[in-house]
Amino acid sequence: MATGFPSSVIFENVAIVGVGLIGGSIGMAARRRGIVKKVTGIGRAEQRLMRAKILGAIDDYSMDMESGAAEADLVILCTPVRLVVPSLARMACSLKRGAIVTDAGSTKQEIVEQADDVMPACTFFVGGHPMAGSEQTGVNSARADLFEGATYVLTPGEKTDLAALSKVGEFATALGAKVEILDPVLHDRAVSVISHLPHAIASALMQLTGESHRHSSKTFQLAAGSFKDLTRIADSSPELWRDISLTNADSLTDAITGLQTILEDLKTALKNKDEQAIESFFEKGRQIREMYIRITQ
Amino acid sequence: MATGFPSSVIFENVAIVGVGLIGGSIGMAARRRGIVKKVTGIGRAEQRLMRAKILGAIDDYSMDMESGAAEADLVILCTPVRLVVPSLARMACSLKRGAIVTDAGSTKQEIVEQADDVMPACTFFVGGHPMAGSEQTGVNSARADLFEGATYVLTPGEKTDLAALSKVGEFATALGAKVEILDPVLHDRAVSVISHLPHAIASALMQLTGESHRHSSKTFQLAAGSFKDLTRIADSSPELWRDISLTNADSLTDAITGLQTILEDLKTALKNKDEQAIESFFEKGRQIREMYIRITQ
Repeated sequence: MATGFPSSVIFENVAIVGVGLIGGSIGMAARRRGIVKKVTGIGRAEQRLMRAKILGAIDDYSMDMESGAAEADLVILCTPVRLVVPSLARMACSLKRGAIVTDAGSTKQEIVEQADDVMPACTFFVGGHPMAGSEQTGVNSARADLFEGATYVLTPGEKTDLAALSKVGEFATALGAKVEILDPVLHDRAVSVISHLPHAIASALMQLTGESHRHSSKTFQLAAGSFKDLTRIADSSPELWRDISLTNADSLTDAITGLQTILEDLKTALKNKDEQAIESFFEKGRQIREMYIRITQ
Repeated sequence: MATGFPSSVIFENVAIVGVGLIGGSIGMAARRRGIVKKVTGIGRAEQRLMRAKILGAIDDYSMDMESGAAEADLVILCTPVRLVVPSLARMACSLKRGAIVTDAGSTKQEIVEQADDVMPACTFFVGGHPMAGSEQTGVNSARADLFEGATYVLTPGEKTDLAALSKVGEFATALGAKVEILDPVLHDRAVSVISHLPHAIASALMQLTGESHRHSSKTFQLAAGSFKDLTRIADSSPELWRDISLTNADSLTDAITGLQTILEDLKTALKNKDEQAIESFFEKGRQIREMYIRITQ
């Protein structure tokens, strides 16, 4: 196990279910930083698990969820968001006493509520969301430094054990991330605005641009430079975003309505040729962005 | 005059009105490539013109629009978009026979229509839009390579002289840009979708994020990484975008309505928990983006 980081072991045995971009990067980072003794990858496709092992994301692997997780002190569920709870349910009875389970799902309210019902006595669930994805997927895109400087949100519910929360926080910090503790409902509202809505917008904008290109075949040619960057996230997996949208439908709907309302105000100002209202629309956006940059620097 | 490019002179005397990011970059590129003999900067603030001269954007300058443009074979109006036609009107009578005037305004329909009414006999107007801005402004941000690989749209109207159009096209090509010829109305529709709407969206998204942050003070912390890139253009000048919006109000309004409608469909799909419609929403965006990348590569 490569080290280079003066860390001590936080969890002896870690099982990662779903060794893709996120799961693979967690495995790489944890192994390289010496905060785990052994990482077991769990998945269905043996070739991908072998690839994960070659890339140094895991020490070993298992295609059986129950036996694979049986020895784990920490299980990290990195499956697609709608498979988190079903995966948890399948392995629940084989978890050892004191085991901690966390996940990396993009939405948290549903998962935290349902996980609490599934977890056996003397095991602990801590909802998590490492905010370090990309439009890439798969273990080939995994990187040991993916979480350096990234925000790693932990979302305790009413039943979450505080010692378990603290230990997962220690683990996430040791991966290089900045841990934020947030209520699952507030998490889901916040990501609906800053992540899910932007993905919906990027897709909608591409659809509109496609329509415009059909009317005037030069639209794509004009849309060089910054437009390409802006719509990069429209390239993400439709299945992934279907599931994220479905597990955060109410907040995403509210966020869309919020955006529609703000844009409606701009339309009104344009209709009235209200110079001051139009300038103030752009001025507000700029001021809030300045505040945001100041706070997050 | 620095050269390094095997070019010949296209216009002997060029006057640039408004020597900021775009005007300054045109001056730098034209001088460095040896396609002009002399560039005169025209503006109101002497210190900025002196700065432009020091930076190599112009050979000389004038604070008087009429005398500054009197000798020019090509006048390039790089003022804020709503000052293009008033500037043109002020210098019209002092233009020499055969002079060509072009502009760099972000919207074209209004300008092309009004410019044709203002131009004296035996002078020629060609609407232009070099699509190479940034959220930076001022001659200090100007670069001789700003137009390399950029799209430079020329928008002939019914009255545009084809020889003048061709010569401005030759000039833009010599700056390193890729010239596209487009009807002014189609130009304005296309940029409303690929530029003006994204700016409105970025501002609206920042406003919504500000609201979310007021409710849960962690929203900004969660909005790291790609969100920062996505909302970068919310940092643009409110005055600039007020004017661009006002001169393209109808197309921008249509683009906003188009986006609202597409997002409304997503809301309906979310309400009905229609998995297929939600997946197809994201799939459509992805497919169109693939097509767009293929075409613009």
